[in-house]
Amino acid sequence: MKLLRYGPAGQEKPGLLDADGVMRDLSAHVDDVAHDTLDPAKLTELASLPTIDLPEVPADTRLGPCIAGVGKFICIGLNYSDHAAESGMAVPEEPVIFMKATSAITGPNDPIIKPRGATKLDWEIELAIVIGKTARYVDQDAALDHVAGYCIAHDVSERSFQIERAGQWTKGKSADSFGPIGPWLVTPDTLGPVDDLVMELTVNGAAMQKGSTKTMVFGVAEIVSHLSQFMSLHPGDVIATGTPPGVGMGMKPPQFLDVGDVVELSIAGLGTQRQTVVAVD
Amino acid sequence: MKLLRYGPAGQEKPGLLDADGVMRDLSAHVDDVAHDTLDPAKLTELASLPTIDLPEVPADTRLGPCIAGVGKFICIGLNYSDHAAESGMAVPEEPVIFMKATSAITGPNDPIIKPRGATKLDWEIELAIVIGKTARYVDQDAALDHVAGYCIAHDVSERSFQIERAGQWTKGKSADSFGPIGPWLVTPDTLGPVDDLVMELTVNGAAMQKGSTKTMVFGVAEIVSHLSQFMSLHPGDVIATGTPPGVGMGMKPPQFLDVGDVVELSIAGLGTQRQTVVAVD
Repeated sequence: MKLLRYGPAGQEKPGLLDADGVMRDLSAHVDDVAHDTLDPAKLTELASLPTIDLPEVPADTRLGPCIAGVGKFICIGLNYSDHAAESGMAVPEEPVIFMKATSAITGPNDPIIKPRGATKLDWEIELAIVIGKTARYVDQDAALDHVAGYCIAHDVSERSFQIERAGQWTKGKSADSFGPIGPWLVTPDTLGPVDDLVMELTVNGAAMQKGSTKTMVFGVAEIVSHLSQFMSLHPGDVIATGTPPGVGMGMKPPQFLDVGDVVELSIAGLGTQRQTVVAVD
Repeated sequence: MKLLRYGPAGQEKPGLLDADGVMRDLSAHVDDVAHDTLDPAKLTELASLPTIDLPEVPADTRLGPCIAGVGKFICIGLNYSDHAAESGMAVPEEPVIFMKATSAITGPNDPIIKPRGATKLDWEIELAIVIGKTARYVDQDAALDHVAGYCIAHDVSERSFQIERAGQWTKGKSADSFGPIGPWLVTPDTLGPVDDLVMELTVNGAAMQKGSTKTMVFGVAEIVSHLSQFMSLHPGDVIATGTPPGVGMGMKPPQFLDVGDVVELSIAGLGTQRQTVVAVD
């Protein structure tokens, strides 16, 4: 099942993408794609609905973030060995954790707003895990039982805020629009194995990031289990699992985004995001 | 006005503390102490209610976190020059930002749960700012117009997770129960100036932290303005503004919390918190 949220920002309704790629409305069945709805058992129930009976949603309707009610937006840093290398950092011995502000979350095709003072606006395509059931001290063996599904997360980053200003990384990761998620939340049964998903990010059509989840240092089960030793994970928490090589900061010379640039992201089975960079008002 | 939330965890109701120190129920007037209710204009309306007409709440009722719907739990690091010194860190040139998980938030007198593997469980009393109105690129002059009020935040920290494990500080700051807030949200008109509030923290009755907000490096208006350059602040966001000297890690030899220890925190005008450390189940 591919769940989504559609409509104007702040007024999104729940929906799904059917097997023919048609968006359909789920309002009669769930309040939102959030909280209890994300429980794997509830998702199984939803998956049994005959989609043909659900109202169609026009294809040009705006997509919102694919889930609502995100309590924590957790990121794993340096989780691809080749990205760690391009960043000049060692591969960590255990997952590096930082957080993005939940207020950074936007729809998959909403503009990226270049913040005031930004000079090193960078991209990072990431596989995101969405938690479906509370996880607290879970073993790796049981970790995947707590996952509602997966989506693309764009971990937009302003490197000057992240690295050159006092503070931890969160300072360069949290501006409004720095967290597009979606287009869909894809359930594990629909997606299949996540250990070799092709990931691709282009800027103005030119390939920048190209990789696969197979080069992740810490896999999904290990990440969920590890995080759950340090904090409880709740339904709707999003975990962005790190980025493969090819970020702007790692290029020689470095290359960054500016107003008018178009970024496209895709991960096999999870769809595509497309954002245009705009000036802050 | 001193706003509060009372009742069992997860089912708290809104209330206030009247001038005689009696808790009273506000359910007939607001849904919760959260979101729109925190707008300074709405708070002014609430303050005009004749409190004598509000139902009394028994004094021994549990207090919950003084606000609900916290979207971001932001912390300012090393914001007292003498605490920076005891931590062996330089005073930063601008506010250092990190985040605690919102799932760490608990009531002011709820137990502190010692996580598995914790060996350096430490305390930090902090003045917390609660945002009442969205703040985005606000000047220092206008910053205080966006503040709903203040409360005590206990930034409970496990130093081994924070410092000795891979990751940013968030790893040692986010365990369940690591963020008691309250007892009350005190509005600015009731609290008065915040630039010289006496702060005190004891462990088993012995004074550990003793300080005043007057030694803060960056003041409230500067912090709100600074943060709003990097992310939008929304009603219900909590900003813990740093801790004065006297944390366990800074003692010679270092001293940490263990099961059975009792921590009491007070800030002038903001009341008292009292937590007992318990083992994780």
